[in-house]
Amino acid sequence: MMTKRVKEILSHYPGENAGVLTNLARMMMSGRLAGTGKLVILPVDQGFEHGPGRSFAVNPPAYDPAYHFQLALDAGCNAYAAPLGFLEAGAAEFAGAIPLILKLNNHDVLHDEKDPVSSQTGTVKDALRLGCAAIGYTIYPGSSGSRAMYEQLRDLAQEAKSHGLAVVVWSYPRGSDISKEGETAIDVVAYAAQIAAQLGAHVIKVKAPSAHIELAEAKKAYEKSKVPIETLPQRISHVVQSSFNGKRIVIFSGGATVGDEQLLAEIKGIHEGGGFGSIVGRNSFQRPHDKAVELLGKIMSIYAS
Amino acid sequence: MMTKRVKEILSHYPGENAGVLTNLARMMMSGRLAGTGKLVILPVDQGFEHGPGRSFAVNPPAYDPAYHFQLALDAGCNAYAAPLGFLEAGAAEFAGAIPLILKLNNHDVLHDEKDPVSSQTGTVKDALRLGCAAIGYTIYPGSSGSRAMYEQLRDLAQEAKSHGLAVVVWSYPRGSDISKEGETAIDVVAYAAQIAAQLGAHVIKVKAPSAHIELAEAKKAYEKSKVPIETLPQRISHVVQSSFNGKRIVIFSGGATVGDEQLLAEIKGIHEGGGFGSIVGRNSFQRPHDKAVELLGKIMSIYAS
Amino acid sequence: MMTKRVKEILSHYPGENAGVLTNLARMMMSGRLAGTGKLVILPVDQGFEHGPGRSFAVNPPAYDPAYHFQLALDAGCNAYAAPLGFLEAGAAEFAGAIPLILKLNNHDVLHDEKDPVSSQTGTVKDALRLGCAAIGYTIYPGSSGSRAMYEQLRDLAQEAKSHGLAVVVWSYPRGSDISKEGETAIDVVAYAAQIAAQLGAHVIKVKAPSAHIELAEAKKAYEKSKVPIETLPQRISHVVQSSFNGKRIVIFSGGATVGDEQLLAEIKGIHEGGGFGSIVGRNSFQRPHDKAVELLGKIMSIYAS
Amino acid sequence: MMTKRVKEILSHYPGENAGVLTNLARMMMSGRLAGTGKLVILPVDQGFEHGPGRSFAVNPPAYDPAYHFQLALDAGCNAYAAPLGFLEAGAAEFAGAIPLILKLNNHDVLHDEKDPVSSQTGTVKDALRLGCAAIGYTIYPGSSGSRAMYEQLRDLAQEAKSHGLAVVVWSYPRGSDISKEGETAIDVVAYAAQIAAQLGAHVIKVKAPSAHIELAEAKKAYEKSKVPIETLPQRISHVVQSSFNGKRIVIFSGGATVGDEQLLAEIKGIHEGGGFGSIVGRNSFQRPHDKAVELLGKIMSIYAS
Amino acid sequence: MMTKRVKEILSHYPGENAGVLTNLARMMMSGRLAGTGKLVILPVDQGFEHGPGRSFAVNPPAYDPAYHFQLALDAGCNAYAAPLGFLEAGAAEFAGAIPLILKLNNHDVLHDEKDPVSSQTGTVKDALRLGCAAIGYTIYPGSSGSRAMYEQLRDLAQEAKSHGLAVVVWSYPRGSDISKEGETAIDVVAYAAQIAAQLGAHVIKVKAPSAHIELAEAKKAYEKSKVPIETLPQRISHVVQSSFNGKRIVIFSGGATVGDEQLLAEIKGIHEGGGFGSIVGRNSFQRPHDKAVELLGKIMSIYAS
Repeated sequence: MMTKRVKEILSHYPGENAGVLTNLARMMMSGRLAGTGKLVILPVDQGFEHGPGRSFAVNPPAYDPAYHFQLALDAGCNAYAAPLGFLEAGAAEFAGAIPLILKLNNHDVLHDEKDPVSSQTGTVKDALRLGCAAIGYTIYPGSSGSRAMYEQLRDLAQEAKSHGLAVVVWSYPRGSDISKEGETAIDVVAYAAQIAAQLGAHVIKVKAPSAHIELAEAKKAYEKSKVPIETLPQRISHVVQSSFNGKRIVIFSGGATVGDEQLLAEIKGIHEGGGFGSIVGRNSFQRPHDKAVELLGKIMSIYAS
Repeated sequence: MMTKRVKEILSHYPGENAGVLTNLARMMMSGRLAGTGKLVILPVDQGFEHGPGRSFAVNPPAYDPAYHFQLALDAGCNAYAAPLGFLEAGAAEFAGAIPLILKLNNHDVLHDEKDPVSSQTGTVKDALRLGCAAIGYTIYPGSSGSRAMYEQLRDLAQEAKSHGLAVVVWSYPRGSDISKEGETAIDVVAYAAQIAAQLGAHVIKVKAPSAHIELAEAKKAYEKSKVPIETLPQRISHVVQSSFNGKRIVIFSGGATVGDEQLLAEIKGIHEGGGFGSIVGRNSFQRPHDKAVELLGKIMSIYAS
Repeated sequence: MMTKRVKEILSHYPGENAGVLTNLARMMMSGRLAGTGKLVILPVDQGFEHGPGRSFAVNPPAYDPAYHFQLALDAGCNAYAAPLGFLEAGAAEFAGAIPLILKLNNHDVLHDEKDPVSSQTGTVKDALRLGCAAIGYTIYPGSSGSRAMYEQLRDLAQEAKSHGLAVVVWSYPRGSDISKEGETAIDVVAYAAQIAAQLGAHVIKVKAPSAHIELAEAKKAYEKSKVPIETLPQRISHVVQSSFNGKRIVIFSGGATVGDEQLLAEIKGIHEGGGFGSIVGRNSFQRPHDKAVELLGKIMSIYAS
Repeated sequence: MMTKRVKEILSHYPGENAGVLTNLARMMMSGRLAGTGKLVILPVDQGFEHGPGRSFAVNPPAYDPAYHFQLALDAGCNAYAAPLGFLEAGAAEFAGAIPLILKLNNHDVLHDEKDPVSSQTGTVKDALRLGCAAIGYTIYPGSSGSRAMYEQLRDLAQEAKSHGLAVVVWSYPRGSDISKEGETAIDVVAYAAQIAAQLGAHVIKVKAPSAHIELAEAKKAYEKSKVPIETLPQRISHVVQSSFNGKRIVIFSGGATVGDEQLLAEIKGIHEGGGFGSIVGRNSFQRPHDKAVELLGKIMSIYAS
Repeated sequence: MMTKRVKEILSHYPGENAGVLTNLARMMMSGRLAGTGKLVILPVDQGFEHGPGRSFAVNPPAYDPAYHFQLALDAGCNAYAAPLGFLEAGAAEFAGAIPLILKLNNHDVLHDEKDPVSSQTGTVKDALRLGCAAIGYTIYPGSSGSRAMYEQLRDLAQEAKSHGLAVVVWSYPRGSDISKEGETAIDVVAYAAQIAAQLGAHVIKVKAPSAHIELAEAKKAYEKSKVPIETLPQRISHVVQSSFNGKRIVIFSGGATVGDEQLLAEIKGIHEGGGFGSIVGRNSFQRPHDKAVELLGKIMSIYAS
């Protein structure tokens, strides 16, 4: 049964068509966190983004596309996100089992650039044909190619929405003008979330922010207004605020594999700060299935608390 | 969790894309009968087909579009089917609550004909925009206008499938060459189910058949092969057989309001004969909400047994 | 300032895009009745529908397109509706002065038929170019050509909505199967309102209904459920109910010129029965400007009360 | 390996694109008669054309779509032809097992007419999507609706050929001006074959002709030129001649179920007269599987001799 | 007859339409390796890619397009792949003799670049017109032009699949960031296979990998997980694993002409490692016809063992 919290979140998208709302609801009403308004999503695009050996050698069953559908299902995730090939290979077998997000663009590291631009590797029609609830798209604010990405997203989001699909945007600051530290700076992450929201994203995915401030003008403003950014919950709260004052679903990536303690502490911080959830890739599929289910279970328990 | 029976039914649609399978699964995995492979669907097109007073005066809250979404939800139906206006008026409010079927064609009785042809009142794009799981379409085999309907269905079904939507066909024999009794004759109903299946329907809705045989050539064949059609279960079984040997979902209409005893006896017969379920309109929304929920509950209990 | 009542009415169109809501709001927030949720609209299509002499000879200034813009403005109407030519001739001069409705189809009596089908004489693009708030479209339920009209409306309404325009449907039962008396029969008018609503109309215009019941099956239902239809307010109330339980704006035509007393009495009945307003053509432009402003003022006073 | 005879037959379609030739070759190089230039095709459209009970009650496993694929395969047919629903239900499971022909139009007998026009129930795109080698289309020369059929065939054949599909035309004279006896008259059958060939058919299917001559002018000509039509081989030879002097593949229908002796005698006559083969529906699927395989085996042995 | 192994391979493409499955089956059920699930394909695009003299002077009959069809046929290859011109010149003559793959893009060395992008030289419609079973497309992961290629492949693959054609992707890492040695590095080849699979390829062609590891991050991962890559079978096995755990058909190129001993040893390694077969160009057409048939025969014998 639809909960009050899910209805409240849906009310933040007034004027959006029923198809989009239905698909947002589907993601929020699936899995172990169904109805809480929190989401834990399994994303597996690393085969494309980083290469298969680097991604799956540590847990060889993960070479198999069916593995990830099953893992997301067993763990009770809200949705599973992947590129075209991985979804085509399993969507019929797992039809109706879990909401799917087709990642419409992807980037490999065989040709790596300072200012990367992903390739569009799937279409809105593919997403419909595969029974997806949403499209996913990655932008790199800060890249000299950001205009190409913003404009491609504009077209894809418009097409997706008019066909009733939700739009999930991965917003990862990268590019020749941003320092490595700056990619997770609080001002930059908040800015990236805002850009995704302004581009019409329904769900935004960013990295958990550090206390570093990258941009000089931002630094002045943060200090003048004494924006609290010392603790992770404070920073999460600022990113949520920057996502239309909490009116857009914003979730955080688990990032590279780290110790479980550290990861769970971060999740607690995200939850405490009002984050809507996590998207946990490498920390889940790069360990044995049962260990992954166990870890995702702990993460969900935090969000359910 | 997807059940073995639902997976078995989905396996009858090999080569169908994952979107269609997902939406078939959605209908079979919703409501009280989720997972049983049986369906009870609430259809409300009578406002258009028969007029509002004739349909709703007996239970005035039913004039309100929201009433039917709520009724279908409260009763635990697998899906709710209605024309454009009724779905547009409630789909956003009830987003994600219950699978929807947009009836793409409708017919009114202000201009009534011996050989009726419905008007196409919605589009596949509307169905997507409203977050529907399927399109619905009515054909009148036996009407001199059947060609126009079959061909319109062909185009709409192709468009729907390529966009991942399931196709539900109401197949109601009517027309100048068919007697009133013939409209529910066992040979005619079985024929109507077969035509819908051959036209590519995923789900077929027909009327519960009588023991009458309408067509002379059919009569000879039925008698020669001693097709058992004396009891309702036998007749249902024959219609299921005629729907690709049970490889297409075929459900039966409750028809005009009758006594509950009689209706429940009929449901038992449908269940016993292997029918996939019922589509219950007037017998549900033309009585007070709680009575309707009670009756639908009894119907579902039979199918769940 | 947007009123509570207008907001309530807009809430009956959930999932509708902001453009459509904006244009519905524009009509409800213009003129003397702004904010009341009541509408008095000036329609002038009689030049096309009945011929110029028959329409304007009695008040020659009305031959001039600018006359009607000015009249609607002077009287404080919510909107002005006319065919392409009349709007093209004045929309630029009166830009921003009053919401406009472009009537997209029209019918003349030089070629008259028992089962009329209007011609599409304007497009959604015309409506946008002319700055209109809505498109208008006439259907004749009961005509053997109703299928052509319903299907054309489906396409135009979809296009209009996707471009943010509201959809106003004139629903006038006519055709070889309906008696003259039947055209305003309570069951037929309620049915016509329902059909327009199911076809996705935002605003419905019907004739004020008589107590006559045309259809045998309807008669049985009305009598069985004792639907009160003796007084005009009761009948209006039934038509409002038949328009999605009051969730669609339904307004009533003034019809042929009658005595003012009689007309105002009818308006009182419409108001008392919960009607959303009137569309007053011949009773306004077929009398001198000041008399028309006076009469429309009296009508608005009733609705404002 | 491609045989000399198959290459010779293909040489009768010079200038035809390689796709069409490939698909013609596929049909001639499949099954037990592969390479002989003879074809025995299993067609199962009777569920649609005559109704399911009348078609399948005598051999209930035939209600199942998979049954016919398997039968065609077990018997070693060159191809299997059926309407959309039957092919959709099995084409993926039997992918690559046997060449398929999608019958693009179909007709039911619930609304039967003196001058029948079939409905287009599938498209060229469906045929491609289902992996078919050819489209099938039925024309009724002699029907007052023949123009609609010829022109629809023109469009479909053009589209099919440009996409590399072969075109199979069922040419069945029927209509208000043709006597029952005339439908199989030698002059009429030869004429029907010629019309199909002139319409661009690659493969033509007609009924085995009787010695009756229907048309007065034809009678004169046949008698004047002493066209030999007494024996079946003579008549078959005349039909083959009428199909571009044997440069179009022309095959003959088995017609209604008759005694096997009689059927095999007819096959011998077709073979002797130079016919290219048979299309055997009811005589195969209306008997038990093994009996059907046996009969089809006997038929193929005749053609292979 | 379809074998168990071929059915198993087809089952790895669930939800794919019957047309695609049929064409995959056609390639796997043709030639000497029919039914084994192994493929040896003859590709001849070197006339375009390297120039005619460099390609054919060593064996002048190979200048003739018909030569290669006949060679593929005589050797019992599963399919023959070539650019538009070569196929147009022979597809009609060899219609039905062997499955064809139209290579849709090609690149010449008259204008050579560090970061090459091939030209699209044929269309999906050409492939249909020519009776092909599949389209072929080359991507150069690592090229700065990879985005243009991935996106063009996305569109062509979608169009091909919807028309029932299989998609074969040549995935050859090349570009300014990749060392010559890196082009066949195990991590890079596995990555190239993964990218092709994620882009929706049904069949993937890569070069046989060396034990070199190109990317620093990959090196760490391979060493950490102790991925065995010392022997060719181990490396092949890793590439198969990287192609969706063996759920995508991955075949290996014979590369430049080498001694036959060395080539056959490599084929044994590919076979032992679970590779699906080979695509042998220069090693076959750059020697006399009979020698080529002999060598291909030896290769097939290994795969058939």
